[in-house]
Amino acid sequence: MRAVVIEAGAVVIKERPDPVPGTGELLVTVQAAGLNGADLMQRAGLYPAPPGAPEDIPGLELAGVVKAVGPGVERFVVGDRVMAVLGGGAQAELAIVHERVALPVPESLSMVEAGGFPEAFTVAHDALFTQCNLAPGEQILVNGAAGGVGVAGVQLATVAGARVVASVRASHLRGALAGLGAIAIDPADTAAHGPYDVILELVGAPNLRTDLESLALGGRLTIIGIGIGAGARSEIDLRQLMSRRARIHSSTLRARPLEEKAVAARLVERQVLPLVAAQRLRVPIEEVFGLTEVDAAYARFAAGAKLGKIVLAIG
Amino acid sequence: MRAVVIEAGAVVIKERPDPVPGTGELLVTVQAAGLNGADLMQRAGLYPAPPGAPEDIPGLELAGVVKAVGPGVERFVVGDRVMAVLGGGAQAELAIVHERVALPVPESLSMVEAGGFPEAFTVAHDALFTQCNLAPGEQILVNGAAGGVGVAGVQLATVAGARVVASVRASHLRGALAGLGAIAIDPADTAAHGPYDVILELVGAPNLRTDLESLALGGRLTIIGIGIGAGARSEIDLRQLMSRRARIHSSTLRARPLEEKAVAARLVERQVLPLVAAQRLRVPIEEVFGLTEVDAAYARFAAGAKLGKIVLAIG
Repeated sequence: MRAVVIEAGAVVIKERPDPVPGTGELLVTVQAAGLNGADLMQRAGLYPAPPGAPEDIPGLELAGVVKAVGPGVERFVVGDRVMAVLGGGAQAELAIVHERVALPVPESLSMVEAGGFPEAFTVAHDALFTQCNLAPGEQILVNGAAGGVGVAGVQLATVAGARVVASVRASHLRGALAGLGAIAIDPADTAAHGPYDVILELVGAPNLRTDLESLALGGRLTIIGIGIGAGARSEIDLRQLMSRRARIHSSTLRARPLEEKAVAARLVERQVLPLVAAQRLRVPIEEVFGLTEVDAAYARFAAGAKLGKIVLAIG
Repeated sequence: MRAVVIEAGAVVIKERPDPVPGTGELLVTVQAAGLNGADLMQRAGLYPAPPGAPEDIPGLELAGVVKAVGPGVERFVVGDRVMAVLGGGAQAELAIVHERVALPVPESLSMVEAGGFPEAFTVAHDALFTQCNLAPGEQILVNGAAGGVGVAGVQLATVAGARVVASVRASHLRGALAGLGAIAIDPADTAAHGPYDVILELVGAPNLRTDLESLALGGRLTIIGIGIGAGARSEIDLRQLMSRRARIHSSTLRARPLEEKAVAARLVERQVLPLVAAQRLRVPIEEVFGLTEVDAAYARFAAGAKLGKIVLAIG
């Protein structure tokens, strides 16, 4: 098979042996694989692959068709359309997916959309509901709202009955965010629209001070992204946190063990896929690149100011 | 009645009109009132009384005897021994306590112990269980463990089946902490005893960096105290937080509205008082002062290096 391989800080296409599915595993012919910030960090040598994932093939999510199944597989058969979050290895013509982390692709999604769905919607769902217990009627701020997790978070919060304020620096993307249900604003105006019960922080450290000042009593701040070049260190004022009785969450999905990814996948299957099937959620795709255009795809991702996902179409 | 009054940064004893209980309220003859860090901050003009509390009479907790009841009181009668967390006003000969925040004083507690019980055990219980979901078999670090909340936290975590590491600077207090069930250590050794599933931080900002480095995967840090003079600002590294999928909580009890104090009091009544009655929990008292010795009591509190509570015995 051909695969994207990280070599000396660059992404190149190489031939690799076809993987073989073990017990409970699917061999998937990959049709689409979304890009994520973790891929760029991995390419830069800052974020090694987690245990069990291929060391040098990036890619945290894919959509494809089951080509073969290992022993004991019960949930899928050859020919099924599946999508999944992986620890790595998705940016290749073939990939191994444990059936417990695989999701069926709803009819309503194209394979390109499905390739950009799993990571963003799983991360956003986990952050908003599992971590922050977002409730109807609450007000949420999504900082850096135009990326994959951002557009997923805006839509999930909107269907959940929250009032959604979405900040994005690129003014030309605000109309599209408004179309997804948000009050789309310039990042400089976030404090003026607060206070917020929940803040989904996708930019990182530079926003932390304003975030803490803008939290409502009992507010929850969840830090999911650290913007490229934004830095990870920030000063916090514990008195601000205490007086608001606030909570700070932070998490990554990539490093979680299989069983935790499976738990998150089951929640998405039960709580998010029905909304996708009902076409109440969309997967905005900014641009699609072919496998051999992977370098241009990474460059487009790094350039930012995009609405939704950058996806590699494979095969 | 006589009351402790904050006047120009000092505490003095003044005559004040006897308060009158309203609907659902108890008039309590105060017999003991524990001191808390918030009293010292209020005396310094840094922490104004919350809405509904007397503006210039400090005191967040008391034990006493019901002297009269307002209309509609159902839970207590004249002569009952009660204890409670208040927003303020406890350091006086008489105080008003809403019956929903009052707790019965178990037979096993003296009134001095009862005066030092409510704030510390409610805060510690709320932090460990309501916020951090401490579970049996987990390892917890209590930083600054010898104070009122510290000794409550050490004991509550111990009876809940956790492995408790307790740090305190004053080496002569470590034996007593070990007697309460903890592995008592020097603060310099906290990282070596980790990682910790839960950290109860009672010192504040200076420990934040080591706390984040010492958290286990899925760890919860709860910041309750900001040590006198310790400062509230600290730098945090979001990557540390994300890679540990950690959570930071922070809270105050004093500023919560009546209904939230009542919810916390009901939890303490159901989950903590039975353990007090069974003598599985103790209320260590460092020193007792008379009402007219209030200035010396505050000075003793500010000096630190004490095991448990400083209590004013009144009347």
